[in-house]
Amino acid sequence: MNHIDGIKKTAMKQLEYPFAQWLERAEALKPALHRWETPAAWLVEVHPDVAAWQNAAVRRLSPLPAALARMRFRKGDVLVAEFPETAVGRLHFRLRAADNYGDSPAWLRLTPAELPAELLHRDDAYTGVLNPAWLPEEIIHVDDLPCEVRLPRRYSCRYLRIEVLGSPGEIIFSEISITSESSLPEALPASPPELPPQEREIDRICLRTIRNCMQTVREDGAKRDRRLWIGDLRIANLLVHCTNHRYDLIERALYLLAGTATDGDILGCAFERPTPRAGCRMHDYALLFSAVLEEYSRFTDHATGVGHALFGIAAEQFHRAAQRWFVGDLARIPAGSWDFFIDHDSRLEKDAAFQALAVFSLQALLRLGAALGRPEEELRPLREWRDRWSAAARLHYYDPAAGVAVCHGQVSYASNAWMILAGILTPAEGQTALRKLEAMPEALRPRTPYLLFTLMEACALCGDRARLQALLLECWGGMLRRGADVCWEVYAPEEPFFSPYQDFRLNSACHVWSAGAAWFLRMGRPQQADDGRCFEKARSAAGLPETS
Amino acid sequence: MNHIDGIKKTAMKQLEYPFAQWLERAEALKPALHRWETPAAWLVEVHPDVAAWQNAAVRRLSPLPAALARMRFRKGDVLVAEFPETAVGRLHFRLRAADNYGDSPAWLRLTPAELPAELLHRDDAYTGVLNPAWLPEEIIHVDDLPCEVRLPRRYSCRYLRIEVLGSPGEIIFSEISITSESSLPEALPASPPELPPQEREIDRICLRTIRNCMQTVREDGAKRDRRLWIGDLRIANLLVHCTNHRYDLIERALYLLAGTATDGDILGCAFERPTPRAGCRMHDYALLFSAVLEEYSRFTDHATGVGHALFGIAAEQFHRAAQRWFVGDLARIPAGSWDFFIDHDSRLEKDAAFQALAVFSLQALLRLGAALGRPEEELRPLREWRDRWSAAARLHYYDPAAGVAVCHGQVSYASNAWMILAGILTPAEGQTALRKLEAMPEALRPRTPYLLFTLMEACALCGDRARLQALLLECWGGMLRRGADVCWEVYAPEEPFFSPYQDFRLNSACHVWSAGAAWFLRMGRPQQADDGRCFEKARSAAGLPETS
Repeated sequence: MNHIDGIKKTAMKQLEYPFAQWLERAEALKPALHRWETPAAWLVEVHPDVAAWQNAAVRRLSPLPAALARMRFRKGDVLVAEFPETAVGRLHFRLRAADNYGDSPAWLRLTPAELPAELLHRDDAYTGVLNPAWLPEEIIHVDDLPCEVRLPRRYSCRYLRIEVLGSPGEIIFSEISITSESSLPEALPASPPELPPQEREIDRICLRTIRNCMQTVREDGAKRDRRLWIGDLRIANLLVHCTNHRYDLIERALYLLAGTATDGDILGCAFERPTPRAGCRMHDYALLFSAVLEEYSRFTDHATGVGHALFGIAAEQFHRAAQRWFVGDLARIPAGSWDFFIDHDSRLEKDAAFQALAVFSLQALLRLGAALGRPEEELRPLREWRDRWSAAARLHYYDPAAGVAVCHGQVSYASNAWMILAGILTPAEGQTALRKLEAMPEALRPRTPYLLFTLMEACALCGDRARLQALLLECWGGMLRRGADVCWEVYAPEEPFFSPYQDFRLNSACHVWSAGAAWFLRMGRPQQADDGRCFEKARSAAGLPETS
Repeated sequence: MNHIDGIKKTAMKQLEYPFAQWLERAEALKPALHRWETPAAWLVEVHPDVAAWQNAAVRRLSPLPAALARMRFRKGDVLVAEFPETAVGRLHFRLRAADNYGDSPAWLRLTPAELPAELLHRDDAYTGVLNPAWLPEEIIHVDDLPCEVRLPRRYSCRYLRIEVLGSPGEIIFSEISITSESSLPEALPASPPELPPQEREIDRICLRTIRNCMQTVREDGAKRDRRLWIGDLRIANLLVHCTNHRYDLIERALYLLAGTATDGDILGCAFERPTPRAGCRMHDYALLFSAVLEEYSRFTDHATGVGHALFGIAAEQFHRAAQRWFVGDLARIPAGSWDFFIDHDSRLEKDAAFQALAVFSLQALLRLGAALGRPEEELRPLREWRDRWSAAARLHYYDPAAGVAVCHGQVSYASNAWMILAGILTPAEGQTALRKLEAMPEALRPRTPYLLFTLMEACALCGDRARLQALLLECWGGMLRRGADVCWEVYAPEEPFFSPYQDFRLNSACHVWSAGAAWFLRMGRPQQADDGRCFEKARSAAGLPETS
């Protein structure tokens, strides 16, 4: 079946949905931004060091702002400033001529960086597959000294390198700072008080990541690609629920995604700017929309009406998926398609994971339908698909002898995690599968913290707390040891320069889908918020077994 | 005599002058700017061509905006747009993604250029002695497509090269335009109707140059160095008088220069921005201030009071000059000093020209003093200096046998032009000197249109209209033949890449001091304005002989 034809054939129902109204709801939910100053804290030097992450270490030379007052810069000179934490916002500084004469402009190359290696490799030939315009760098002229320079674009950075390309004699920099911005306030929420030190630190970097990415939409990463992706949104929703309770940002995202649906298809992502508009297709994400909708709706006690408003279009995605991707009761992803995510791994056989994800999302939507009292005729096809797809997946992909799910001969954590999470394997089978996988070096491991999150959810669902904790310490503990103060989009300890975009400088260092540890750190722990043991509560609301 | 000590010794009187009040007057005279659109007219290609000026020719490929609608650009692509004339203002254009998707920023390198060769040599190693920040170039990111890009900085340009460094797939440019700005309106004043075609064209490029440089101050050139220099101001004052009558801009300049005087020294120039402030010293210009003040005051029938207001500080400059630079009655410029301009020529012996310029300026100031009825005790020392310096210069520098002025063994147009203009030579002697100079290939010729203007004034004063006309056609006719539509700061036909700044890309192509032809084209011709034959009138008011 040609999936493009399939898409055309199902181009229906679009006029039945109040897209414009949904976009209005999204606009009404647009948050005001908090702003605060994060002044640069140190003058530093970045130097090669094989012992450091990505072979780049930072030496702190002197504290700012004092050091700058004594320094004079002219053509060819460089300064690197370090901020006290990775900050997202607008860079600014003051500039004057040392002799107060200043007969000509200053010409500066500014390179904001999240990680030190980006600075060491700033002039490397570009090898990435994305638009190189994402590389953070500005070359500016400053006409009238003395003045305050404020860069209009927003950056995510821990470091700012300034190279003087031209100057009117000697110039003096001062007050290097970033006006941080977020829809959340500067102060991070409290961490659960009983957390041991390392987990407490992990929690802080997660919370900082969430705060930094919560802008006028919940962005995946503040550095690059400000599309609103549904996969990341699901993790963000859980994080909002267990930390800052800014549900409005999730609801805004749900309406943006629904409002920018194309021919009735919910796409994988939406753009906020310059005006809300459709992103690109990602067919697993279109189904996962239902899971986010259900979780959100439940966390907010169905109070805002978004569940009712978007139930229909969420359900519609399964009608389309059934028609487009299923041959009998088995999903067949078109060969070579980029339009199914699961993980950043082109080797991955995705049919099993995709089918399990569909079942997981259907279960969520059915729960939502039941909670909202949607009519039986609306729920019936969903229930049938869930049952048939679930049974077919178990039959086709679960190998009881090997104790793991196998997809077209390939064993992967992706297939198994989603099969477990969808309840296609029992918790006991899941626990076995997780144990077996560890003994199979050929099993494809998660490459993104997004899939890692799914795997950790699967561990939680099986009650495998030890494995969950080990994964958490391996990933987030590892990032911490390597100097992270926010959660990296990509963390492959054996491949420090791995990039899904084929140039590590494009990797985002502050990425919501990597902040999921905060959810697990709160799992089963007392909460300050009124929702008590939120993970437990969520699980029990989902009709899932207790974990402890 | 150590001239630095001299400067210190004479650091007096500063508190007697109402500097703040002068700056207030300047501010009150700040003009509003006219703005109009100058859309790009052609898509062009710049290519090497030994027959073209600076070996760079422009081939017009297709008219804009139509051509752009069909074109798609991606990383590595380049477009060069040509504007219908050299324009000064803010560049802008529209940009969109061809597929309307645009998932990432556009990254563009923009190179505005006044002359085609600047584009061919854009990547040459920089050899200039000025700050390279003057090279016009911007590298920008455009985050949200579709959008209108408006560059905040002002440029003077005929061409705009756009190179795509990164793009979200294919992008489309449209509406490339410059919002021109000037304190003068777009429409140029009428040229004298009887001008023959070539002179009419020369007049147009002068008028366009004046218009383009008349900003919130009368700038020397709009490309670079927006300081307000007194030498250029004198030419601008004559041009204002014979064309657009925007005397307010000259008066503003006079007050800015007086208001930013330092320790009572009028400097060679002033900065307008970020706030009015002192420029650097240029001691011939400090004296020439009196000539501008007198001419301005006379042109405006002494109506605005600026002559009275600034007479004292203008006269003060001669007291200081007498003390600092004169040994007996002969000026001795400190060896190797950069603080005396006369011309951009380090070979030039400047003592004679400087002394003659002092006499010329004293005559002007004495005329002003007489017209204003200033007290005799104020005028007496000025008159004495004029007479003594004039006589000493004639005795010391004029060689009646050779028929030319000779300064320390060197024959130059600079010495002779100023000696003639100061009346140290009679018109008949002047005419002989001008004729003799032509037969002396070793005589240093003017390198700047500023000194050329002085030379042409000297021709006019001697009634040597033929020579005046020849100089006019040689210089402006030459620029015209080489494609100029505005008047170049530097025009050395035998040295196309000559630059006083040692990198031709820094030369300004639209420079007021090169627009002086408009003054001579109106000399002795009927005027539309009420001042009749302005040059004649000016000469007669100056007590100078009739030229015809």
